[in-house]
Amino acid sequence: MSVKKNFYSDNVSGAAPEILDALVAANAGDTAPYGADPSTERLQTRFAELFETEVEVFPVGTGTAANGLCASIIAAPYGAIYLSNAAHLHGSECGGPEFWSGGNARTIPVPSVDGKIAAADLARMVDEAGARAATDVPPRAVSITQGTEASTVYTPTELRSLAEAARARRLWVHMDGARLANAIARLGSTPAEATWKAGVDVLSFGATKNGALAAEAVVFFNRDLAQTMRYRRRRGGHLFSKMRFLSVQLEAFIAKDLWLRNARHANAMAQRVREGLAQIPGVRFRGPTEINFVLVTLPQPVWDGLVAEGYSFSRRGAPSEGIIRIACAFDTTEEAVDALVATAHRHAGSRQGT
Amino acid sequence: MSVKKNFYSDNVSGAAPEILDALVAANAGDTAPYGADPSTERLQTRFAELFETEVEVFPVGTGTAANGLCASIIAAPYGAIYLSNAAHLHGSECGGPEFWSGGNARTIPVPSVDGKIAAADLARMVDEAGARAATDVPPRAVSITQGTEASTVYTPTELRSLAEAARARRLWVHMDGARLANAIARLGSTPAEATWKAGVDVLSFGATKNGALAAEAVVFFNRDLAQTMRYRRRRGGHLFSKMRFLSVQLEAFIAKDLWLRNARHANAMAQRVREGLAQIPGVRFRGPTEINFVLVTLPQPVWDGLVAEGYSFSRRGAPSEGIIRIACAFDTTEEAVDALVATAHRHAGSRQGT
Amino acid sequence: MSVKKNFYSDNVSGAAPEILDALVAANAGDTAPYGADPSTERLQTRFAELFETEVEVFPVGTGTAANGLCASIIAAPYGAIYLSNAAHLHGSECGGPEFWSGGNARTIPVPSVDGKIAAADLARMVDEAGARAATDVPPRAVSITQGTEASTVYTPTELRSLAEAARARRLWVHMDGARLANAIARLGSTPAEATWKAGVDVLSFGATKNGALAAEAVVFFNRDLAQTMRYRRRRGGHLFSKMRFLSVQLEAFIAKDLWLRNARHANAMAQRVREGLAQIPGVRFRGPTEINFVLVTLPQPVWDGLVAEGYSFSRRGAPSEGIIRIACAFDTTEEAVDALVATAHRHAGSRQGT
Amino acid sequence: MSVKKNFYSDNVSGAAPEILDALVAANAGDTAPYGADPSTERLQTRFAELFETEVEVFPVGTGTAANGLCASIIAAPYGAIYLSNAAHLHGSECGGPEFWSGGNARTIPVPSVDGKIAAADLARMVDEAGARAATDVPPRAVSITQGTEASTVYTPTELRSLAEAARARRLWVHMDGARLANAIARLGSTPAEATWKAGVDVLSFGATKNGALAAEAVVFFNRDLAQTMRYRRRRGGHLFSKMRFLSVQLEAFIAKDLWLRNARHANAMAQRVREGLAQIPGVRFRGPTEINFVLVTLPQPVWDGLVAEGYSFSRRGAPSEGIIRIACAFDTTEEAVDALVATAHRHAGSRQGT
Repeated sequence: MSVKKNFYSDNVSGAAPEILDALVAANAGDTAPYGADPSTERLQTRFAELFETEVEVFPVGTGTAANGLCASIIAAPYGAIYLSNAAHLHGSECGGPEFWSGGNARTIPVPSVDGKIAAADLARMVDEAGARAATDVPPRAVSITQGTEASTVYTPTELRSLAEAARARRLWVHMDGARLANAIARLGSTPAEATWKAGVDVLSFGATKNGALAAEAVVFFNRDLAQTMRYRRRRGGHLFSKMRFLSVQLEAFIAKDLWLRNARHANAMAQRVREGLAQIPGVRFRGPTEINFVLVTLPQPVWDGLVAEGYSFSRRGAPSEGIIRIACAFDTTEEAVDALVATAHRHAGSRQGT
Repeated sequence: MSVKKNFYSDNVSGAAPEILDALVAANAGDTAPYGADPSTERLQTRFAELFETEVEVFPVGTGTAANGLCASIIAAPYGAIYLSNAAHLHGSECGGPEFWSGGNARTIPVPSVDGKIAAADLARMVDEAGARAATDVPPRAVSITQGTEASTVYTPTELRSLAEAARARRLWVHMDGARLANAIARLGSTPAEATWKAGVDVLSFGATKNGALAAEAVVFFNRDLAQTMRYRRRRGGHLFSKMRFLSVQLEAFIAKDLWLRNARHANAMAQRVREGLAQIPGVRFRGPTEINFVLVTLPQPVWDGLVAEGYSFSRRGAPSEGIIRIACAFDTTEEAVDALVATAHRHAGSRQGT
Repeated sequence: MSVKKNFYSDNVSGAAPEILDALVAANAGDTAPYGADPSTERLQTRFAELFETEVEVFPVGTGTAANGLCASIIAAPYGAIYLSNAAHLHGSECGGPEFWSGGNARTIPVPSVDGKIAAADLARMVDEAGARAATDVPPRAVSITQGTEASTVYTPTELRSLAEAARARRLWVHMDGARLANAIARLGSTPAEATWKAGVDVLSFGATKNGALAAEAVVFFNRDLAQTMRYRRRRGGHLFSKMRFLSVQLEAFIAKDLWLRNARHANAMAQRVREGLAQIPGVRFRGPTEINFVLVTLPQPVWDGLVAEGYSFSRRGAPSEGIIRIACAFDTTEEAVDALVATAHRHAGSRQGT
Repeated sequence: MSVKKNFYSDNVSGAAPEILDALVAANAGDTAPYGADPSTERLQTRFAELFETEVEVFPVGTGTAANGLCASIIAAPYGAIYLSNAAHLHGSECGGPEFWSGGNARTIPVPSVDGKIAAADLARMVDEAGARAATDVPPRAVSITQGTEASTVYTPTELRSLAEAARARRLWVHMDGARLANAIARLGSTPAEATWKAGVDVLSFGATKNGALAAEAVVFFNRDLAQTMRYRRRRGGHLFSKMRFLSVQLEAFIAKDLWLRNARHANAMAQRVREGLAQIPGVRFRGPTEINFVLVTLPQPVWDGLVAEGYSFSRRGAPSEGIIRIACAFDTTEEAVDALVATAHRHAGSRQGT
């Protein structure tokens, strides 16, 4: 295989070998359908061990489904979910919360800095809305993206502040953990510390971006919230008949720290990209690089040159801003990063490392 | 691997080797996410060839999603879908049509014989409802399950009659083809004859029960109906980020007639089960065996004996009726069928073949 | 005013004088909007007295709104409502239950005789569905129409049987009391006996058909069910800003037994119609006349003659059956009934009373 | 009747005498139910005359219903409605747009100055969203409140600019005209100029705040949009059985310019309040007074004194800001305004008019 030039998304990769192997191994033999199989049942134990507490785990096919199902539950019977104005759940899921909730959920964007919202802003907005709750949509939940769409990570202190502000206002705390692995790899905390110990009630646990083919999970730390999940998932078309094929992906993902090893690697590669580009005059980073991608504005000749040589990135923000996202994944190699950096230097007319 | 004793469902099997191979092969290299990859684009051509007409194909993860998405479209802006009282869409998807349509779809069960509804009943019920349409939910569509939950198949004549009754009343025609392969294998018709040439507007195309891991598709013959599908699928969580992994399953499924070969085999195995059991006194078949399962009432000692030896079946109808479904799949072997039949004979005290 | 010839519906009349007077009286002075006014607050006490128990009362504008709001509550978080196949809520409200519940409610018609369902049928259908509840829409409630669309009334025994069958299966009991007054007038029971003492949890209390301009109410006997009503009513557009104008209608309606006096009169007039027509050869009554309308098939010359003279009725059932409904209201006079009967006799060629 | 001290809302009044008279007059005689009566049919003509164009008019009971029905139509099949962050439809209807649309509508608040949004902001936000439309909720409509919740009025130029920005982006234009009469009275334009000639597709036409008991209407200038209205209104519980009682209110409202006379008077009374208070030191007006209410911060002794004497106002904005709304209605007398102003002066320790 040639060196990776596709830095468009952490979704452009295939699956990690360990996960593909698990899938192939799961193919043998017959088993009960619709999640009554041993792999799916075993998953409950595996996640309880991982998070050091009793949980209820529901595998689903996509992050949008995980988020939508969570939204329908935390907004019930009707209410508003506060989240970053950059949150995937708000602006990238075609109105998923409204759809999954049958018109009972509304998302309220909170201003963010580097993708993160602050407890003080949450508190203020919820308090103002609470005073209007007889006529307006009442606050019910906060959704926190960890790590964020801006390559940042909430610190444990920030997380606890948000959760405390939420608790004090009787809001449920949802975490969109599409890149939870990357965040934990950055923070060095335990999965428990990063979630329920910080106040999270329910988690969209991501695996696809970090090595699975197609598998995510909803993890309930607050198991009372899980009561309606069974039918919501089924009617929403995410109770897979051959569920074991999702479950074994998730099992392999968390076995032997694969998810954290993958995430550490992806984060390191993004760091390597940043360091490599930093020396090019005119390169302007747009915020920190705490997880697996770099937000940056490149000098026009660099951008043109990379595209001409077949490199691919996604754009962020308004076109006029010229921000691109360089996304690394579990399978991005040092060699690929170095080639990218060298190519950028070449087109910048700069001499790398000098 | 030991001989199959699990006849509970055609979903208890793993994937066909050809499909698993395609999945593994798809893992190499990077590609565009969210269905902009070459495999997914190629699928449009493959399905157009298969059905001998232009189509729009949308891979999704489950049959419930395919059916729900179709229901939301054919009932729009609001209306009733007529279907068999045995239809999966009506009674086995936790109210999927209501959910996917945001409360705009209602399913109206039509009485069925051996799982099939008759054009005359459809016409009568729709006409009566049409007269009340100012106040009641107006008829908008018919959904036909091919093959049915009762192991039967609509003949081309029956299908055309239904579609004509529908057309005359301006109803859309949906086909739930979770077992379309089995039906076509039985009928010997072309895919085109079995669907759009008979008047079908949109099809839930099943693959999972017949050899895929997890892949279904919505196929629009009436492409005007596809206009809202893009966002409906995304918000419903069935636009997979690594979509190629669904697309290659579907591609392998229809390549080299795999889907029909698999279905023919499963049908033949069900026939073999039926013939094998027919000679046991007290065995009572509940309807025809036209596709891949047998509905039957067994003498109590036979049932008890099979269960005691580890055999597994699903029940159908009210418990008092004692009907079981013996489901065969693409990977059910003659050896496994013969072992099942021999075991049944043994517990019946009969001598097989004499 | 000329003698009434419009027997199309009990909705063709204007308002009772007592109610119009109350409305005019309510016009003086300023008051708090949105139901915080004294009339609306007083209504809580008036209904508590009427029903001899604590209740929560929510005035709304129409019976469809009352029923839809109730449906959204009793089906929550998602489920099926069992009711007569003749129920207004099922077939005459354009899919109101699905709409008000955001796709969470399904209505399941139970076969009826003279508009009434039997406890045994309810029990059987719910038990069968309960066994499928993991995949099908789970039973949550029964909705009983009292009096029915067929001019019949559930006896206290029938009502208790239904409610007991419901309780035993953990179903909520809703009563659609669009014509509750007519039923109570017929039964001679107290309002308490006719509702919560028989097991009713929540009631759509009708007034418009029986003398109000436009006022109905949802009455919660089970006050836990009322928790979400406040916002459901507001977003549904039934929290009227000048709510007092609904409340005073309801107050006048139940004051001094007006509602029962009106209903007794309407019932008596229907009885008088029936007795008057009974002597005409070829007249065929279609079921009992227990409340305020008569279902009947008339000889063609009688029908033609009445229509030619400007009489107006509504049709019921399939057109081929020729069933008409002769509806009497609170303001139908003996004179008007006698004129109708005489006209019918004249066109029948019969001599009335001989 | 004592002098009015209730300036809480324009909803605290009863009905205008002309409208009450029309209601009483409508009570005589029988008529067809559900809007098939002559008054309702006549309304089509009356509104066509009023607006100098063909329209479709649907009476409903409340403004929330009118707005919710419009939202469900203009957002179809799914999309976003842009509106002022102060709009009633956004923050005062308990999530009505999401509810009425079954989860298909989202409201997007545009920053406003004095309650009004600017065409440039609308254009910019829609353009940015349009670029994300594959994943985000696509822009479909703008909703303009005329006059606004801030006692302001869009000028014809402002209105045309908004409508042109909308048209250029293929957005429908809705007008929430709960106080359209006050706006037209202020502008001196014709009803046609104020609506469809400026680009409005569909109008929530308000009457209740300005003299009706309970009657609003949805007026379609773009009659194609009206196609689904019939069933949406019925299932939403706003097809009143005795519809004539709504229709005659609306008819009397627009007859002989009553609506404009009422509005001119209310506007003038608000102006009189403003002029009367202006001379009190420390009184701070919060924006213009272009229609029938005054937004103002009063010195604490004035506020305390007015409340102590039984005056009533509503608060606006955050409590710390201390903004009150003094609302005048069609029946607010000069005497009442002068008494309010004199009382305020007395508590301010100032001498009025000196």
